[in-house]
Amino acid sequence: MTDPQALDRAACAARDTADPLAPLREQFDLPAGVNYLDGNSLGVLPRATAARVQDVVTQEWGQGLIRSWNSAGWIDLPRRVGDKIGRLVGAAPGELVVADSTSVNLFKVLSAAARIAQADDPARRVIVSERSNFPTDLYIAESVAAQHGMVLELHDIDAIPARLASGAGSDVAVLMLTQVNYRSGRMADMAAVTAQAHAAGALMLWDLAHSAGAVPVDLNGANADFAVGCGYKYLNGGPGAPAFCWAHPRHAERFWQPLSGWMGHAAPFVFEPGYRPAPGMQRYLCGTPPVIGASALECGVDAMLAAEPLGGMAALRTKSVALSELFIALVRQHLAGSGLTIHTPLDAAQRGSQVSLGVPADGSIDGYAVMQALIARGVIGDYRAGDGTAAEPHLLRFGFTPLYTRFVDVFDAIQALAEVLARGEWREARFMAKAAVT
Amino acid sequence: MTDPQALDRAACAARDTADPLAPLREQFDLPAGVNYLDGNSLGVLPRATAARVQDVVTQEWGQGLIRSWNSAGWIDLPRRVGDKIGRLVGAAPGELVVADSTSVNLFKVLSAAARIAQADDPARRVIVSERSNFPTDLYIAESVAAQHGMVLELHDIDAIPARLASGAGSDVAVLMLTQVNYRSGRMADMAAVTAQAHAAGALMLWDLAHSAGAVPVDLNGANADFAVGCGYKYLNGGPGAPAFCWAHPRHAERFWQPLSGWMGHAAPFVFEPGYRPAPGMQRYLCGTPPVIGASALECGVDAMLAAEPLGGMAALRTKSVALSELFIALVRQHLAGSGLTIHTPLDAAQRGSQVSLGVPADGSIDGYAVMQALIARGVIGDYRAGDGTAAEPHLLRFGFTPLYTRFVDVFDAIQALAEVLARGEWREARFMAKAAVT
Repeated sequence: MTDPQALDRAACAARDTADPLAPLREQFDLPAGVNYLDGNSLGVLPRATAARVQDVVTQEWGQGLIRSWNSAGWIDLPRRVGDKIGRLVGAAPGELVVADSTSVNLFKVLSAAARIAQADDPARRVIVSERSNFPTDLYIAESVAAQHGMVLELHDIDAIPARLASGAGSDVAVLMLTQVNYRSGRMADMAAVTAQAHAAGALMLWDLAHSAGAVPVDLNGANADFAVGCGYKYLNGGPGAPAFCWAHPRHAERFWQPLSGWMGHAAPFVFEPGYRPAPGMQRYLCGTPPVIGASALECGVDAMLAAEPLGGMAALRTKSVALSELFIALVRQHLAGSGLTIHTPLDAAQRGSQVSLGVPADGSIDGYAVMQALIARGVIGDYRAGDGTAAEPHLLRFGFTPLYTRFVDVFDAIQALAEVLARGEWREARFMAKAAVT
Repeated sequence: MTDPQALDRAACAARDTADPLAPLREQFDLPAGVNYLDGNSLGVLPRATAARVQDVVTQEWGQGLIRSWNSAGWIDLPRRVGDKIGRLVGAAPGELVVADSTSVNLFKVLSAAARIAQADDPARRVIVSERSNFPTDLYIAESVAAQHGMVLELHDIDAIPARLASGAGSDVAVLMLTQVNYRSGRMADMAAVTAQAHAAGALMLWDLAHSAGAVPVDLNGANADFAVGCGYKYLNGGPGAPAFCWAHPRHAERFWQPLSGWMGHAAPFVFEPGYRPAPGMQRYLCGTPPVIGASALECGVDAMLAAEPLGGMAALRTKSVALSELFIALVRQHLAGSGLTIHTPLDAAQRGSQVSLGVPADGSIDGYAVMQALIARGVIGDYRAGDGTAAEPHLLRFGFTPLYTRFVDVFDAIQALAEVLARGEWREARFMAKAAVT
């Protein structure tokens, strides 16, 4: 923060002018008249993607047909794009593969973790996670736990250290957390929490859905055990893009994962009747790779890797923190007394790349309608319902994606939000359709 | 066969001219100079797909961003495209969903079948399949069997009726077959085999990878229990297109399937911590739908549904049989004495939409090199290795996709194959890269 006092639009514009990362925005096709602060739900379209997808469809598929499995490198896509994502999350080449959805990948790695834990110590029968983890993680964990005779135990995030500490964690098989909580934006210290899990003898599984491309991640540096992540949020891979999974090399070959499809076979084109898992992470592939989606994802990852000469994830993180600090400062300046509360940690070290604002527990503001009114003004964040209490409020969620979000965007968003509230615009904005996908 | 004696090119061209389905070919962008007989591995590009995918990328994603989950109907894609595929395979609206890969979907439905069988009769512990079933089906079944304390038993297809008959099948939980064998092209009678399985008290699971869009299928008419199928073969959905799965309504709600992701939850956007499966087949969804791939698949399915006013799958089947009968007749005429054998049933009722030719067991012909030489001439089929015996020969595989394959294409393919063999061209054709995806 060069000048925390200067919070007017001109000062924000000056910061954009001085921003060495500003040219990265040119890589994206952003809709006119839209201030998009929802890249934590669905990332934007890289300029390169449309042409690349068209080439995959018309040339590689249309002209090359089956020959493209070799000539266009389709068969290597899961590893090629995986290696690129690995550079963003501290995974070495060959350690990370692109495949399936985040939910399906979680099933694979959590099943492997459960098998390893059971083999090493059958008394470890508990999978621990955060109560407010993204639900699909909990649903998948519920299924994996049931299949392995384990139980899924949910805790508030602050209660987890005690659950693991000094002998209390001797029954814990796996700690499974999303590093950045999708609601609050609170970020866990990956190395510290992994060390806590290991000290208790448990395996550590990270969901990087709101981390990969958003904050620096070092899976090997943190000595994590397993990870999954999403391709369509900060990685800008497109709606429903393929996801990814990683296992520490010490685990990658210990067990089959249960989705033992032919692409994870040691010799997929020999067509043997019996399964023999491929070496390393390739065994975490299952069916035929989704070529069009994986090619689009590669464009998104490439757009992120374009930041490497400018300082890479560390530089993006610095800008991300500056954006969220600015947002918080502007909330305090313009929304004091509005009833909205800041539901995201004020300590930047505990914050991902989003800020969530809670609506008052007294129900005096309809957060859903506020977001619809903002969207009508071209400011796109999203709304996530809670139970409406002060502890778990309904949320207005704003994501900052330093590849393309500008300081003026943050300024304009707060101005719009202040006006929507001051003018009561949201009272008229209850017309729009429901539900966006986080 | 209007005139089985007339096997010259002019007669084939005349049949194309008279073919009421011939205009359907205009729906596809076929590469110049290519005679494509591998639609059973990867279907061709519909003309509508490139523009549709471009619209999804640049407009729905690029401009609409998260708003498109509602405004562009992304959230309904799995059911919308599923309903269209349902029209091709005898599934009612709402019974079939598009999701994930064939392998992943098989894991879902086979797990559900195993749970149902165990609940109804714990003594049924055997999953029976065909030894030469497509390997990924066997690998997935191996995993599901292990997870449920069951065993996977593989038999030659002709031995399966005895395995099920008169009491011998009392330990069988599920019979899992691919209706059209990927190697031999042999087609099972879905209704008869399903009845055999049911008579033995077993559930019947069909893989329609080489059936959907290739032959008429009536899942409900056959009273089948579960089915999966592939989007990128006869449905022309593009490389790695999403797949589909179906359960008979009597089973759809009996159990969760283990990949219990948020898209299969009863209320995915309420973000509850506990899993409640959605009603009906929607619980077979798992993660966020692959929007670009599913949109491309819809174009492929639409191209197939365009045959409905012309007689639909029944008319396509009539043409398919005529094409494969022509191929067989030409093999007999032009390849007698070549050493190649017809490895596909001669009875059209037992044949899918492909014919496979076995290479001599004496190793005198290198089938792989023959196919490379054919491909160099623009005739694309594929090669599938066997064990090299007369019982399981190495195969040259030719698929006939009546939406776009012409009678002259069949004629030209046989001429090319005869020349490749007569001139020994294949001896020089060992240069090309390995492996295409079935």
